Amino acid sequence: MMASDTTQFDPMLDLVFERIVDIPPSLVWAAWTTPEHLLKWFTPAPWQTIECELDLRPGGMFRTVMQSPEGEKFPNSGCYLEIVPNKKLVWTNALEPGYRPAMPKGGETCESFLFTAVITLEAHGDGCKYSACVIHGNPEDCKKHKEMGFEEGWGKALDQLVAHMKAR
Amino acid sequence: MMASDTTQFDPMLDLVFERIVDIPPSLVWAAWTTPEHLLKWFTPAPWQTIECELDLRPGGMFRTVMQSPEGEKFPNSGCYLEIVPNKKLVWTNALEPGYRPAMPKGGETCESFLFTAVITLEAHGDGCKYSACVIHGNPEDCKKHKEMGFEEGWGKALDQLVAHMKAR
Repeated sequence: MMASDTTQFDPMLDLVFERIVDIPPSLVWAAWTTPEHLLKWFTPAPWQTIECELDLRPGGMFRTVMQSPEGEKFPNSGCYLEIVPNKKLVWTNALEPGYRPAMPKGGETCESFLFTAVITLEAHGDGCKYSACVIHGNPEDCKKHKEMGFEEGWGKALDQLVAHMKAR
Repeated sequence: MMASDTTQFDPMLDLVFERIVDIPPSLVWAAWTTPEHLLKWFTPAPWQTIECELDLRPGGMFRTVMQSPEGEKFPNSGCYLEIVPNKKLVWTNALEPGYRPAMPKGGETCESFLFTAVITLEAHGDGCKYSACVIHGNPEDCKKHKEMGFEEGWGKALDQLVAHMKAR
């Protein structure tokens, strides 16, 4: 399996989330690339995404601030790498906006490890085949991400995405 | 000054090398993107580049092995980010090929710090305005790179590039 044209999937290093949803790729794309939409679904409730800044071009900023139910804020900042409208979105937190190498992540943020996410969308009947491959640099980070609840978290977020885009 | 469309140059973090050369952008581009050429100029003599593997697409591999005059080998591996033929080449060692976050660099390789390089080429009469901006994640890495002889190293390599492309 190829996570991307250039990424060879490695089960020791990478996590994959795949699902068919009943909204078309264009709506999933809009949900991922429009701050007003992303704020509504990106973080599984009762967590919230309270800020979102997107500069949708290679090297551009992908910045969010998440908030815990207790009100604690967790800023995350990354950089877009590939943008193919309605088909493929790649970003990483290993680079800051403008491709600047990221500082080592401390334990104080949600994203205390580095990863690159490759989202691919494919038409599937009237809906969309949604795939996310999250690429890590070492088995420890992959395991940590998995144990944080990767599968459940991405599943809840996707449910929120679909519900939000249908309710607009 | 903008190092790239998305990178804001920071004198505490970034190193810039600029020069006018008397070969056109297309030849500089060929020198950077063709292994047979790159092997001839990439490493200031008496160091050599003894291996080179390029996969010229976003996410693709940029791999070299340098060799010291004493015969010690130093492998380096990075990932292309942006490719605009004859104009702009961006790569980083903060990501391995396929956008995989790089392991922390040990002191044992040439590149014991992370950086992103943005090479821009611009026609200048019959020649080329050559700019390299090397982007670091912290002031220590920038200082280390500078003290390793950034300016002299990139200058010697560029002299070799121009001499090689003229002699072909």
